[in-house]
Amino acid sequence: MTATTIPTPEHVQPVPLDKAYRLLNHGPTVLVSAAHAGEINVMSAAWACALDFLPPKVTVVLDKATRTRALVEGSGVFALGVPSVGIAALTLGVGTDSAASVPDKLARHGVRCFSAEGHAPPLVEGCVAWLMCRLLPELRNQHTYDLFIGEVVAAWADERVFRAGRWHFDEAPDHLRSLHYVAGGQFYVTGASLQVGRDGP
Amino acid sequence: MTATTIPTPEHVQPVPLDKAYRLLNHGPTVLVSAAHAGEINVMSAAWACALDFLPPKVTVVLDKATRTRALVEGSGVFALGVPSVGIAALTLGVGTDSAASVPDKLARHGVRCFSAEGHAPPLVEGCVAWLMCRLLPELRNQHTYDLFIGEVVAAWADERVFRAGRWHFDEAPDHLRSLHYVAGGQFYVTGASLQVGRDGP
Repeated sequence: MTATTIPTPEHVQPVPLDKAYRLLNHGPTVLVSAAHAGEINVMSAAWACALDFLPPKVTVVLDKATRTRALVEGSGVFALGVPSVGIAALTLGVGTDSAASVPDKLARHGVRCFSAEGHAPPLVEGCVAWLMCRLLPELRNQHTYDLFIGEVVAAWADERVFRAGRWHFDEAPDHLRSLHYVAGGQFYVTGASLQVGRDGP
Repeated sequence: MTATTIPTPEHVQPVPLDKAYRLLNHGPTVLVSAAHAGEINVMSAAWACALDFLPPKVTVVLDKATRTRALVEGSGVFALGVPSVGIAALTLGVGTDSAASVPDKLARHGVRCFSAEGHAPPLVEGCVAWLMCRLLPELRNQHTYDLFIGEVVAAWADERVFRAGRWHFDEAPDHLRSLHYVAGGQFYVTGASLQVGRDGP
């Protein structure tokens, strides 16, 4: 099970850890990637959420049937990516097919990965943000609820849409907006920015 | 601490429990409401997430400093509402002020509640969906991570934007779209629907 590994794409810049929660705060669907014992995998997950500011923590739900979960449990690390509209079909595909029954699922859905130095989990090209996470083992949560908690140890974003600690979707091409999955292949795209003052919009 | 209690608004219809996860699947910011010992409160939370399909479960992060958390712990029940653009200022306000220091915060921010028969937590008018939840006590999560798990026991939505198990934001006025909070008073509005087939958008 492999994906094409490419150099770090243009526009990828580090995000300070105290701003990393903002990459997930608006509730996008994510790609979960992990590597263990020579195997890599990527799956999509709509059920991922920020859990703390600093050190930043996240939750993500990983079903027992997924191969990616086994890689997370085996390696103790995983990455979350925030996919853009440009890879919506890929996002649906890697969330529908399991590597257990479709061994070439990454190639089939055109998944291209790059590496962050010092970190094993692959990062998926076409995302607009990435969070590298260390699993905080909580066996009761994992067993009872399929709920995994991670501490974010590094983060990056595409500077065309996230810079100086803020998203700037309205100033970039629409294919770089993030995605919010519902069901049956339907997503909502992240829409317009709305700045609210304390006295009203 | 009170809010105006009003009859059930027009357009509110029950949502079958097997579709309740779809009310949160796209990652909106929520309003958390609870009642205990004659006190009610409402706060906003960007960190809420679906956790299971059926019975539907949710996670929500409630800081120890909030009054709403005390009401949830005291009563064992809470409601999540999905606020619309029309109450964005209210959503920011009840997430910024605490009832601990601003006792009239609900009145100050114009919070109007209605009741669902047989359930104590108030539901906030101006939301487009509501999930009534029974706390599943997990003391380690609550203490260590401020993480609360609830089982959804009833759900409702505004039929103008959610019906037959699906969101229909694109066919309704924009002020009924849901919200995704980032930071500093900035939200993103739920945007356009994107239907992806297995072979591409």
